[in-house]
Amino acid sequence: MTSRPNITINKRIEKRKMGKLIETVAWHNGAVVLIDQSRLPKKLAYIHCNNVKQVWQAIRTLKVRGAPAIGAAAALGMVLGVNGKKHATFNVFKKRVNTLFDYFASARPTAVNLVWALKRIRKLVFSHNAKDIDKIKQLMLEEALLIIDEDKINCRKMADVGQRLIEDNDRILTYCNTGILATVDYGTALGVIYRARELRKKIKVYSCETRPLLQGARLTCWELSRGKIDVTLICDNTAGYLMQQKKIDKVFIGADRIARNGDVANKIGSYTLAVLARFHNIPFYVVAPFSTFDLSLRNGKAIPIEQRNPKEVSELFYKKSTVCTGVNIYNPAFDIVPANLITAIVSESALLKPPYEKNIKRFYLP
Amino acid sequence: MTSRPNITINKRIEKRKMGKLIETVAWHNGAVVLIDQSRLPKKLAYIHCNNVKQVWQAIRTLKVRGAPAIGAAAALGMVLGVNGKKHATFNVFKKRVNTLFDYFASARPTAVNLVWALKRIRKLVFSHNAKDIDKIKQLMLEEALLIIDEDKINCRKMADVGQRLIEDNDRILTYCNTGILATVDYGTALGVIYRARELRKKIKVYSCETRPLLQGARLTCWELSRGKIDVTLICDNTAGYLMQQKKIDKVFIGADRIARNGDVANKIGSYTLAVLARFHNIPFYVVAPFSTFDLSLRNGKAIPIEQRNPKEVSELFYKKSTVCTGVNIYNPAFDIVPANLITAIVSESALLKPPYEKNIKRFYLP
Repeated sequence: MTSRPNITINKRIEKRKMGKLIETVAWHNGAVVLIDQSRLPKKLAYIHCNNVKQVWQAIRTLKVRGAPAIGAAAALGMVLGVNGKKHATFNVFKKRVNTLFDYFASARPTAVNLVWALKRIRKLVFSHNAKDIDKIKQLMLEEALLIIDEDKINCRKMADVGQRLIEDNDRILTYCNTGILATVDYGTALGVIYRARELRKKIKVYSCETRPLLQGARLTCWELSRGKIDVTLICDNTAGYLMQQKKIDKVFIGADRIARNGDVANKIGSYTLAVLARFHNIPFYVVAPFSTFDLSLRNGKAIPIEQRNPKEVSELFYKKSTVCTGVNIYNPAFDIVPANLITAIVSESALLKPPYEKNIKRFYLP
Repeated sequence: MTSRPNITINKRIEKRKMGKLIETVAWHNGAVVLIDQSRLPKKLAYIHCNNVKQVWQAIRTLKVRGAPAIGAAAALGMVLGVNGKKHATFNVFKKRVNTLFDYFASARPTAVNLVWALKRIRKLVFSHNAKDIDKIKQLMLEEALLIIDEDKINCRKMADVGQRLIEDNDRILTYCNTGILATVDYGTALGVIYRARELRKKIKVYSCETRPLLQGARLTCWELSRGKIDVTLICDNTAGYLMQQKKIDKVFIGADRIARNGDVANKIGSYTLAVLARFHNIPFYVVAPFSTFDLSLRNGKAIPIEQRNPKEVSELFYKKSTVCTGVNIYNPAFDIVPANLITAIVSESALLKPPYEKNIKRFYLP
């Protein structure tokens, strides 16, 4: 496309070949390239999406997942959806952009980063009246790549803010996957852990497997192993027992959406960990960039909770049911951690503490 | 063997053919017959154990599991171990009984019912000085069958005591499997639910899948479906979210060992549910017969917690690992619910309430 993105991509591909960098979401030769997270840890494979349906499906089926990562993927998906197509008028073009917006927004409802990224792309288009649609397409790509680059920078900033919370010899409980794979690079909660490790703090991490899709077992353990970080896998139901035995010093999780009062939507099971942490007086931290905050929502009750296919629970990964027929299965993908159970929220701008409503406003509202 | 057991068994087999009765543990034609719980819910199959190793393996690998059920299986295993063998002297015979005792006691460490049943059989042998060893063998079988019959009676008694705690339209959370399959028949916590249902109380049950071996998903859902009880399966990490939404009225679990202060060892994850129940002011009930109480232990700290094979966590049921190599896995099979988180303990003699130490003594010590 433009020279800038191509250069960037070439560098990325080069680094990837050297095995030094994994990039979860990228633009390469006019395609959206994603790590296929459903195949990890068995195989590190990439999907090359040449049409919007492939991107939508990848988001929907969690081939790409993690709030920041799906925002980046959808932004590139918008570019893919207008690329190489003729649009008779600017109005036709805007209509196409609106259609793409609605299409990608429908892929998953809870993580607000998805809609946040789509809005950025749409706003850019709608702020132009240029007759040169090709120029706008180029700007769209640049905006999408900017989202990607910002995500990387924000992850590093969050890591710098958050690492101060980690002391030498801390034993940290984490949930789901909030690392390289959940973002474009580095991660949110795992980014904090990576940074603390780079600063030579000794850390022991407990990773909950995170049923039903086992992002903790499959992805977090894989990432931390690659990063030479001491990681121990547990079933989700074992977290309480570890805390009871005083084996956990801190909990770090990510977020899919944060309401303006500080209520956090995150992977189902996060609420249980927050209650356990409170019961045992263990600090409970959430790490998320500004793109995860939804200041239009007064509290967590307004956050839509995605209900997913019961087969995720009953068929594990192997298409054989472990449950007899006729049994109801309840499979919400997220739950809400109320602000009053959260010790602090690590963002790229600041370490936010209660009262969250006031402090979130102070940092994020102009 | 003797006429009494054969008649009993014939009746049982007959009923089983009619599909009206499942019996988890039975003695038939000189063999220990067990439901192979590892094959459920796909297939209701029986294992015919003709030697003690088969019984030991069945207990060890959870083909038969549930505290009362493994007690019954081990008692019959003792009979199997002396049957059809010649013993030169009574001392040789006693030695054999001691060896069998240690062998079966080594199969699983946490559930005290196992050792409780073995002790009953050993005590019977040691209380005799008869020269007629065959007569003692017959008494051993009768004692083992008595354990089985008592278990059934005790389950019904617990169900009668416990059903009073259930009100019409209750939504009950349960864990692991505590039903027909965990006992010889009917169950502990699920027995209470069965009885309430027989009394036409309307109940909705939520069954936690119970990682790693999915006893909730595979066994409890299967049992409750057969019993036409409204059951909904959830991942273990979803229990907190249900409570937060005020969808759970009561929690009922079983037990593997209860110390004399009322601390309860039960399937890993029970402690987390107890903390969640306390946080949400939801009554938390434990249902267990006297054979599960270990009055020799002052509190739960003295209960041995079985550590099981990490592959149970990483390979699910399909011998394919979902975790990359080099990751530590922590897989305790049980945890301890402290007495102060338990609303009441349902036993066959009484509904035990705090202070447990005093009330347990009152009912169970002479």
